[in-house]
Amino acid sequence: MEIALLGGTGDIGEGLALRWARDTDHSLVVGSRDSANAEAAVDDYATTLAERGVDAELAAAGNAEAAAGADVVVLAVPTEYATETVDAVAPDLQEGTILVSPAVSMERTAAGFRPTPPDPGSVAEAIAVATPEGVPVVGAYQNIAAGALSDLERDLAVDVVLTGDDADAKAVVSGLTEGIDGLRALDGGPLAATGLVECLTPLLINLKLNNEEFDDLGVRFR
Amino acid sequence: MEIALLGGTGDIGEGLALRWARDTDHSLVVGSRDSANAEAAVDDYATTLAERGVDAELAAAGNAEAAAGADVVVLAVPTEYATETVDAVAPDLQEGTILVSPAVSMERTAAGFRPTPPDPGSVAEAIAVATPEGVPVVGAYQNIAAGALSDLERDLAVDVVLTGDDADAKAVVSGLTEGIDGLRALDGGPLAATGLVECLTPLLINLKLNNEEFDDLGVRFR
Repeated sequence: MEIALLGGTGDIGEGLALRWARDTDHSLVVGSRDSANAEAAVDDYATTLAERGVDAELAAAGNAEAAAGADVVVLAVPTEYATETVDAVAPDLQEGTILVSPAVSMERTAAGFRPTPPDPGSVAEAIAVATPEGVPVVGAYQNIAAGALSDLERDLAVDVVLTGDDADAKAVVSGLTEGIDGLRALDGGPLAATGLVECLTPLLINLKLNNEEFDDLGVRFR
Repeated sequence: MEIALLGGTGDIGEGLALRWARDTDHSLVVGSRDSANAEAAVDDYATTLAERGVDAELAAAGNAEAAAGADVVVLAVPTEYATETVDAVAPDLQEGTILVSPAVSMERTAAGFRPTPPDPGSVAEAIAVATPEGVPVVGAYQNIAAGALSDLERDLAVDVVLTGDDADAKAVVSGLTEGIDGLRALDGGPLAATGLVECLTPLLINLKLNNEEFDDLGVRFR
């Protein structure tokens, strides 16, 4: 399967690229607005992987080119660029391509972090509004700490909650997720239930801020 | 320490009463609007505990009487009665008594459960508005499944997130919480951060509804 990581030079993109490259045989394309940045990131990731004996073939491209050929497109750009990135790559998305939204909108207040979801209730739903018909959107990876994901020495043993209205698309993303050692994929319901998953991220950050024993924090349901 | 469980005849009250009676030496008072219901519940809990070789001394009382002598009052009533119960017991609460709020407000929609927090953002904060000065409010136990808590055969190994503005009160509730085998208490920040903890409960229910492998679900941060 071909996976494009748009904004794949950022921290969550790095972690997913490294883990998928190490743990699976999927084709990976790291996308960026500037393809030169994607090239530099791919060189960096390949070095990290080579140090662990992994001979990875990662491709680099501009975001639109990366999206064009992919079976699954992960929108790993900063949240404030999520909608405009969808608009930019929309003409290149093939029908049936799955768009994955890991983004969360939040702000820091005196009481800690709190969610600031866009209408209609979550970043994933806002992205779905901007996405062409025939391209299912799946919410995933919001609650995975980027630092933990990109640290290949770290055992994850955490859960990823998937939301979406297309059961087949969720099953594909579930398979991709569980291809990474230590990740378990759970069904969180339809896309309209994504707001609760996005709320978990500021809670995790607050727990990290208020409890000395934690660094990069994930969640396990049991 | 004396702990009063207002609405202690309900499911979360039952679980806390059984676990504290089994695992700690605290004095427990089960309160109810009708003290005869509290008496019946206490008989029932004592039988359950005796079957496991635990000789527990549980007291029964009306809610106001239970609250009057307690160091810690757990507001284990159904959410819709939380504020009026605080109003009813307010004259009996001593300064320094700690009020614990495990309640969550939510509704079921086509997309699953979703939170319906009262102003100013959580049930715990609404309760704090109704609580006399000098009585600190701590949010706790929202994310513990009552069925798991009251099943004494079940190993919990789950987390309880505490929120509140009084550090000493949070430390007391942390100690009470970790007195129960398998519960770990974490600091979730000030009371104004409780909304995120209350949001976790509908997410847990959605995961239970959408994933066959789960029954009563809790959470572990790691």
